[in-house]
Amino acid sequence: MSKPSIPQGTRDLTPEVVRKRQYILNLLRHIFETCGFQPIETPSMENLNTLMGKYGEEGDRLIFKILNNGLNDASKHEKTRTALENVLQGKNDVNLTERALRYDLTIPFARYVVMHQHELIFPFRRYQMQPVWRADRPQKGRYREFWQCDCDIVGTNSLINEAELLYIYREAFYQLKIPNILVRVNSRKILSGIAEYCSAQDKLTDITIAIDKLDKVGKDGVIKELNERGLNDTQVGDIIRLINIETNHLDHLEKEFTAKNITIGIEGIRELRDTLAFHEELKNNSWNNSEIKIDFTLARGLSYYTGVIVEVNCIDPAVQMGSIGGGGRYDDLTGLFGLKNLSGVGVSFGIDRIYDVMEQLQLFPQDVSIGTKAIIINTGAANEIYALQVLKQLREQGIATELFPEALKFDKQMKYAFNRGIPYVIIIEDEERNQQNVRVKDFNSGKQSAMSIEALISTLL
Amino acid sequence: MSKPSIPQGTRDLTPEVVRKRQYILNLLRHIFETCGFQPIETPSMENLNTLMGKYGEEGDRLIFKILNNGLNDASKHEKTRTALENVLQGKNDVNLTERALRYDLTIPFARYVVMHQHELIFPFRRYQMQPVWRADRPQKGRYREFWQCDCDIVGTNSLINEAELLYIYREAFYQLKIPNILVRVNSRKILSGIAEYCSAQDKLTDITIAIDKLDKVGKDGVIKELNERGLNDTQVGDIIRLINIETNHLDHLEKEFTAKNITIGIEGIRELRDTLAFHEELKNNSWNNSEIKIDFTLARGLSYYTGVIVEVNCIDPAVQMGSIGGGGRYDDLTGLFGLKNLSGVGVSFGIDRIYDVMEQLQLFPQDVSIGTKAIIINTGAANEIYALQVLKQLREQGIATELFPEALKFDKQMKYAFNRGIPYVIIIEDEERNQQNVRVKDFNSGKQSAMSIEALISTLL
Repeated sequence: MSKPSIPQGTRDLTPEVVRKRQYILNLLRHIFETCGFQPIETPSMENLNTLMGKYGEEGDRLIFKILNNGLNDASKHEKTRTALENVLQGKNDVNLTERALRYDLTIPFARYVVMHQHELIFPFRRYQMQPVWRADRPQKGRYREFWQCDCDIVGTNSLINEAELLYIYREAFYQLKIPNILVRVNSRKILSGIAEYCSAQDKLTDITIAIDKLDKVGKDGVIKELNERGLNDTQVGDIIRLINIETNHLDHLEKEFTAKNITIGIEGIRELRDTLAFHEELKNNSWNNSEIKIDFTLARGLSYYTGVIVEVNCIDPAVQMGSIGGGGRYDDLTGLFGLKNLSGVGVSFGIDRIYDVMEQLQLFPQDVSIGTKAIIINTGAANEIYALQVLKQLREQGIATELFPEALKFDKQMKYAFNRGIPYVIIIEDEERNQQNVRVKDFNSGKQSAMSIEALISTLL
Repeated sequence: MSKPSIPQGTRDLTPEVVRKRQYILNLLRHIFETCGFQPIETPSMENLNTLMGKYGEEGDRLIFKILNNGLNDASKHEKTRTALENVLQGKNDVNLTERALRYDLTIPFARYVVMHQHELIFPFRRYQMQPVWRADRPQKGRYREFWQCDCDIVGTNSLINEAELLYIYREAFYQLKIPNILVRVNSRKILSGIAEYCSAQDKLTDITIAIDKLDKVGKDGVIKELNERGLNDTQVGDIIRLINIETNHLDHLEKEFTAKNITIGIEGIRELRDTLAFHEELKNNSWNNSEIKIDFTLARGLSYYTGVIVEVNCIDPAVQMGSIGGGGRYDDLTGLFGLKNLSGVGVSFGIDRIYDVMEQLQLFPQDVSIGTKAIIINTGAANEIYALQVLKQLREQGIATELFPEALKFDKQMKYAFNRGIPYVIIIEDEERNQQNVRVKDFNSGKQSAMSIEALISTLL
């Protein structure tokens, strides 16, 4: 008999953790639904071909592949051996593995839209909350199975969508009560404009990688990296001046772009301005925990973004955590699967990181992990029938109640109730049965009192 | 570019399907919580060793195995080739695959209880709703990824638990409004008693397999199969007489067992009687769609059951469907992982079949798949700001509302609203903006009327 264990990088979720995660997911679900998004789910397994080549070389390596079934069929042995040799060389071969586990929700969504394009009604607003799997080296806060939560709108170019997604972020973090939320926005078009301004369109990726590090390495560090990446001093000077425009960002940058007639940059500025104007109308006046900041250094790694991009951080000093959300507009994601020119925009919530932030700052409501509200102590066969009747009446009122199933010693049952965190204990002995009432101990106040079943119900409701 | 597809036996869930499934899952979750069960989740991947050998030979073959990562590391090539040869011979080898996808929720639960035994508070009542994967040949209604939904109580022998699980079944199917629910109960001990009665303890499995088919093949068929399985005529006669006791089942069978002093059979009868007596106290007087029937032919395949067993069918004439739920008591499930003598009892809901039954009988509430309640028609830039203000006010009231993001032709937007099944359309043109009110079309009545925003809110709430 082997001592049981679970695979590295995976975890069992205890009741408390499941309930806290449900709290986050339900709250997000409610906001998505209120904003007209519809839920979809895709299979955990996709065809390997659907996933390979979509996440870069590193991604390809981290995809979990599923061994084909029926390999012991002798007629397939030779093919399978050849397939293994390919796999040993780092290639894929459908004769050994034709399926793989979902790596993110974006590619399956693109695949979904293309496969269902004739039955979908555009613009299509969907949200999706499902686990994904990555064979990353496990470390604190990084798991091989974790949840993603995405919402996207495809089939529309309107910037109202961008404004709505900013609303969703801020409203969600407002309702989750996470403090010090910073929502940074930028546009890929502005980044392209900056590259064009200094005649370095071919170096767009180098520029974005370098300036993205401004927070970490400071201005001098960025200058050094830009130089190393082959930009000359004039170009570097231009870039630093443009991204460093501190006051009244948009107007000043627009003036620079206009002077050199950089149309893509001007368009990026207009789009950001419209997005923020629409967002202003949707703003909830109670928001006091988040702000939006334009940040020309924000790049976001994924190359498929084409317009407005956004990233969310909790900058509370007590929290050391990367971004807890991000997204942007992409103009041709479904092109990967043959459906061209379908524009989309979406954002993602990092559920596991949000969970960690809330745990660290103790933001979960106190009662979120209370399941059972009351437990009836089992005092033996003579009182069991009456106890079951009380149990039935409480449950009929929707009150989560247990009857301890065996007449163990009183102390043991009390200990069970206490350790489970059940706030009320109901004691039924001969006297209570005869009087058809109950004795109730409230763990919070420590008080104990006799009461009728009606009074019990109104205490517990 | 390949035309995208998904693996055989898997499916995309559309918004309507996700919502209907959520309806079932939420209802079950609510009942479980009211009865004091706590949610847990286990990883999708388990170590292959945890799963192998637990589901029989057939099961072993149907488990989806995950290819190890990092196989292109040259130092592992020889080991991997040897591992493949083992796999080609139908064996497992951790050098090729050390992880596999969850095949059911029972074995992972047993593994969970053993791994967490020192932090768990017994009796432990847990529920779990998660997908499982099986490499079965796909066919109508049978998928390679499907959901299971289990609730179990471990660490207690009390028959109150059995009674509670019967309550959960009947209450769930009552709330789901599924008609003609038949809950059949039996006890493994009664089956053992019957085998002992006719001195055929070694043929218990043969007997249960044969009598389980009474419904399908009739009395003569069962007699034939019992003969074929090596039981002599006296034995067959006894078995048929004992399982055929039509009236007052328990008393008559008890008399037979008592005459021959079959203690295990007598115990089985007492347990069933107590279970039903406890259940009687918990019964909801409104239940009018289900009944409990004692059925001595009920066997349930899995060999780990030791006490009361139960199976649920919808016997509505319009439905052709196998069981939609089943379970029972097992006395030593965790023994597989080294924790002996921990008794448990549990039941399972067949979510996909329940979904199919409800779909077939059209039992889902009409509004279950309505997401968005109202949509604002976009009539162009001049009215967009006012439209956003209306949108914001409706969402603040929790009313799921969309603003069509672009000023497409009126007809196109109306068609979108209609096809999406959105019941109310809000029209804002110059006149409405100037008067700060709205025009509303109700798709159900076909009526259209102007109203203030306050009136709109109370119409939609």
